[in-house]
Amino acid sequence: MQSILSGFRVVEGSAFVAAPSGGMTLAQLGADVIRFDPIGGGIDYNRWPVTADQKSLYWHSLNKGKRSIAVDFRRPEGQEILTRLITAPGEDAGMFLTNFPAKGWLSYERLKAYRDDLIYLNLKGDRHGKGALDYTVNCKVGFPSITGVGKSKSIPPLNNPLPAWDVITGQQIALGLLTAERHRLKTGEGQLVTIALADVALATLGNLGYIAEAMINGTERDAIGNDIYGTYGHDFACQDGDRVMVVGVSPNQWHALVEVTGTATEINELQTRMGLDFRKEGDRYQGREQITKLFQPWFAQRPFSQVANELDNAGACWGKYQSIKEAVESDIDCSTDNPLFQMVEQPGIGEYLMPDHPLNFTSLEREPVRRAPKLGEHTEEILADTLGLSAPEIAKLFDQKVVAGSD
Amino acid sequence: MQSILSGFRVVEGSAFVAAPSGGMTLAQLGADVIRFDPIGGGIDYNRWPVTADQKSLYWHSLNKGKRSIAVDFRRPEGQEILTRLITAPGEDAGMFLTNFPAKGWLSYERLKAYRDDLIYLNLKGDRHGKGALDYTVNCKVGFPSITGVGKSKSIPPLNNPLPAWDVITGQQIALGLLTAERHRLKTGEGQLVTIALADVALATLGNLGYIAEAMINGTERDAIGNDIYGTYGHDFACQDGDRVMVVGVSPNQWHALVEVTGTATEINELQTRMGLDFRKEGDRYQGREQITKLFQPWFAQRPFSQVANELDNAGACWGKYQSIKEAVESDIDCSTDNPLFQMVEQPGIGEYLMPDHPLNFTSLEREPVRRAPKLGEHTEEILADTLGLSAPEIAKLFDQKVVAGSD
Repeated sequence: MQSILSGFRVVEGSAFVAAPSGGMTLAQLGADVIRFDPIGGGIDYNRWPVTADQKSLYWHSLNKGKRSIAVDFRRPEGQEILTRLITAPGEDAGMFLTNFPAKGWLSYERLKAYRDDLIYLNLKGDRHGKGALDYTVNCKVGFPSITGVGKSKSIPPLNNPLPAWDVITGQQIALGLLTAERHRLKTGEGQLVTIALADVALATLGNLGYIAEAMINGTERDAIGNDIYGTYGHDFACQDGDRVMVVGVSPNQWHALVEVTGTATEINELQTRMGLDFRKEGDRYQGREQITKLFQPWFAQRPFSQVANELDNAGACWGKYQSIKEAVESDIDCSTDNPLFQMVEQPGIGEYLMPDHPLNFTSLEREPVRRAPKLGEHTEEILADTLGLSAPEIAKLFDQKVVAGSD
Repeated sequence: MQSILSGFRVVEGSAFVAAPSGGMTLAQLGADVIRFDPIGGGIDYNRWPVTADQKSLYWHSLNKGKRSIAVDFRRPEGQEILTRLITAPGEDAGMFLTNFPAKGWLSYERLKAYRDDLIYLNLKGDRHGKGALDYTVNCKVGFPSITGVGKSKSIPPLNNPLPAWDVITGQQIALGLLTAERHRLKTGEGQLVTIALADVALATLGNLGYIAEAMINGTERDAIGNDIYGTYGHDFACQDGDRVMVVGVSPNQWHALVEVTGTATEINELQTRMGLDFRKEGDRYQGREQITKLFQPWFAQRPFSQVANELDNAGACWGKYQSIKEAVESDIDCSTDNPLFQMVEQPGIGEYLMPDHPLNFTSLEREPVRRAPKLGEHTEEILADTLGLSAPEIAKLFDQKVVAGSD
């Protein structure tokens, strides 16, 4: 945890991946992020993966570093508490992040009446207001159609397991709150900021050149398996069955591959025969199948450890295919050897490796990585310190089950 | 283009996806982002996809909204110009973004000598300083091992075509510059900020619960094709062969699916028979194969248009599988009907649909989306206006081929 945003306060009413990961990002950068949930937990409180006794590893991973207040906001008393919390005074406060419907007591207009310079970031499914999830957006923008090899009506598209649009949207949510707060610092003006998950995917399609390609060239992208479009990259099995991905994107990376595999003569003959110039990435892409055949024996004749050493010595750019469990159990980068990680105890679950934000601000010391809160862990402290309620007022709210603490 | 960051100035020395997309994000939010390149273009200037006459649709898509200066920075005169540009005065200036090696004249220490409050963001491959690309990082963190179905040494892993780590890193780069600038506004202090592509992937693995799952439960995630882990989601072929992805994550989404397919009785029988409670997401996941069999006939008996209408009317959450070309050619969200997009002429290439940033700041008017610069398009204006060089000084630099303009 780094304290570069210390003092910055955001209230979050959220569920699932994108919105919670936006709040978590700000918390990892030192912001005070208060997530509110219904008593007993919201819709995402029990999501898989879960422990043997049904504690959600998902929820606890996505809400690290936040404070938690549990409130029955179906009741007017609960709505009033949250309204006061969202619109509480303070130069660094008055920011709200939600993927809940921005309606009724939770509408921008209603909340703005209590704090005119409120910053309210609302995440929607699509621009029409329809619900959407990563997987329903991803199929729409076409990535499943170019995953694997040879897609057609008889070879169905393949989903991508990483919810990339959720993760990207989470970072954009953090960006939206930061830029809006910068604007408020300079002008005094708050505002409603909206973002739609589907638009994030569509914009990325444009930013990566796919839209221009379809419109200008009129061509369709093929499913090319483990090749990389427009350059040279492929996976190889080593003698012991371990696999590596190697890339030859830059001239140095390409030369390292040719050098280490001892194929300079064959590669030269190949480019002459095909009328290609492998100094150009696009030409390497056009010759990729033949290049792969020339490289293959070198990998097949060596165990992984030797392949790794020789690739490193040659300055090649490569990675090992690992399962997630392998990465967690044996990759030194996925351990406390990496300053990104710390072992942290999560109450009720146990100790595991928790990441900080990958940004490293060298002017500030890294502080301990903060675990996720227990649901309602900070209810009392928030009511007392942030809203300034008296002990009897707080006791009454607990008695009436308008709020709840943690076990 | 939105002007929320107007005045914010970043100099960028970059190549490929992550770093350029970070600068592009800031440009889309109104910042003045000056990308420098060698005369004739950098390593990524000709990357595929390319037009019939070899213009890169990739480069032009990833550098929208920036200004371009072309400088021969192998020569001391070129290095001096860029040093002055990176460290130029101004409260909103003095920010540098690069994925080049931070060495020699381009090192933080060297540049900081000219501007003590410089903010310098350096993207690296991995924390050890080794090169890494999206594809060599992605295989390391395990997503190819859970793509498709039934991975083993005989069924190789499948790469994911979206360079998600690059795109996520680009947003985090923008976030890093913004938070560092906020810190500088409050304290006057600049700094070196670093981020490694491999760390972005590793942190995400933790944030999404995968690390906790491997460490606490000791289990391995399987490759489950088009199912969604821990909940209900699957793809279905309609009568005419078009495919849809449907999800039942929330109770409402789940009920809509059961309702629209008319399978309430069979679903009830199934949960009784299996001893499951489909009100719980995890139980729906456990019953997914049988659930899919019950839903399948409903889709197989209807053409896509009817499936779409009935799913919408039932309030289901779903998406159509489209190829990228289909999305671009026929999806109304991928057209100027969506305020995210504008048709913009890119000189030498033609007119195509360009996205703005998906964040929508309602206090500000959207301005026209800005195309990519021609290489060197702003060389003269930057030398004159930003560095204050005289006309004869500028003419000399052009004559000596230290700098170049565009064609």
